[in-house]
Amino acid sequence: MGRTSDAKNKILTAAHSLIEQRGYSALGVAEICKTANVPKGSFYHFFESKETLALAVLDQHWADERREWECVLNGGAEPLQRLRRLFESMETEQRAGQDGCGSVLGCMFGNLSLEMSNQVDTVRRRLQEIFETQVELVSVVVAEAQQRGEVTVADARAVARTMVALTQGQVLFAKLHNDPARLGTLWPNCRALLGVQDQQVPAHA
Amino acid sequence: MGRTSDAKNKILTAAHSLIEQRGYSALGVAEICKTANVPKGSFYHFFESKETLALAVLDQHWADERREWECVLNGGAEPLQRLRRLFESMETEQRAGQDGCGSVLGCMFGNLSLEMSNQVDTVRRRLQEIFETQVELVSVVVAEAQQRGEVTVADARAVARTMVALTQGQVLFAKLHNDPARLGTLWPNCRALLGVQDQQVPAHA
Repeated sequence: MGRTSDAKNKILTAAHSLIEQRGYSALGVAEICKTANVPKGSFYHFFESKETLALAVLDQHWADERREWECVLNGGAEPLQRLRRLFESMETEQRAGQDGCGSVLGCMFGNLSLEMSNQVDTVRRRLQEIFETQVELVSVVVAEAQQRGEVTVADARAVARTMVALTQGQVLFAKLHNDPARLGTLWPNCRALLGVQDQQVPAHA
Repeated sequence: MGRTSDAKNKILTAAHSLIEQRGYSALGVAEICKTANVPKGSFYHFFESKETLALAVLDQHWADERREWECVLNGGAEPLQRLRRLFESMETEQRAGQDGCGSVLGCMFGNLSLEMSNQVDTVRRRLQEIFETQVELVSVVVAEAQQRGEVTVADARAVARTMVALTQGQVLFAKLHNDPARLGTLWPNCRALLGVQDQQVPAHA
């Protein structure tokens, strides 16, 4: 039992790292097994296909990332502070990736959206669900800021959608220029999109 | 002579369409030649490698797109009208792609940035140049709007960079959802980023 689940985890870890660095199409099952150091027979014991593996990698990656998002967004600080921490953490995360392997890896969900969403329907649906959840998590906090009169934007969900889209666009440029600092404008731009009220003006003025 | 350049054009056209639909890594030279209906020997007569071909496809695609951008952005209308036309044309363009092949294809430059910019240095540099030119073309028009007091944003180049990044993010979601209407918020969001002055208020008020 112990050894069996160990092989599955090795495959997942290897596939995660390879997909993050080189995408999906360029990979073969043989290479994944070689990197994972497991026999090829093991692969098909755990995964029906490369597609099934990609879905498992996406789920695991989102489970980890979602935990971090919820930790930041459900924290005790004021709503705009929590949003700020989330969008500022994007730069830290890409910097950590760069420190690890020399290259900004971007966002696995964005990478696979452009690479294969128009080719593999199961992956397309899973990515849609993940991004919808991101939008939902952000929009709840935007709505809190709305209720406190801290932002002027009218539609919390629409602006959350734009903030998530802008993040993907800026992560694309961080990857293209191998420069996490490209993400430094993300929060100031989100403030402009939210119509954040100047903090010098009291809410009741 | 005529037949030779015809073969080259056939290869370029086939590669353009295949890269747009399925990316770079998934393609082989044999498939490109089969689609182009030219013998494989022809390929290496015109292109040193698949990488050289990808650069030629990028150059041709950008030459066409740049012509359209310049036509819109150097037109006679007021600066904000020209910017509006550019960002509204993104939806039209993705809709045309969808009508042609059933799927929103996204932006070839964005697709290849995420798929291969961290793997092939020549492609990375070419994509960086293309996006820098896009930013330059937009920022010149933003600066015009600044001089006319129509926008409050201070740094024309920085906001142009954000507008180009947001476009990439929204195109990603248009592709993921196979829905060009996702681009409908692009211009209203660009207005918020620019800090467009309310048109009801005269500039000298």
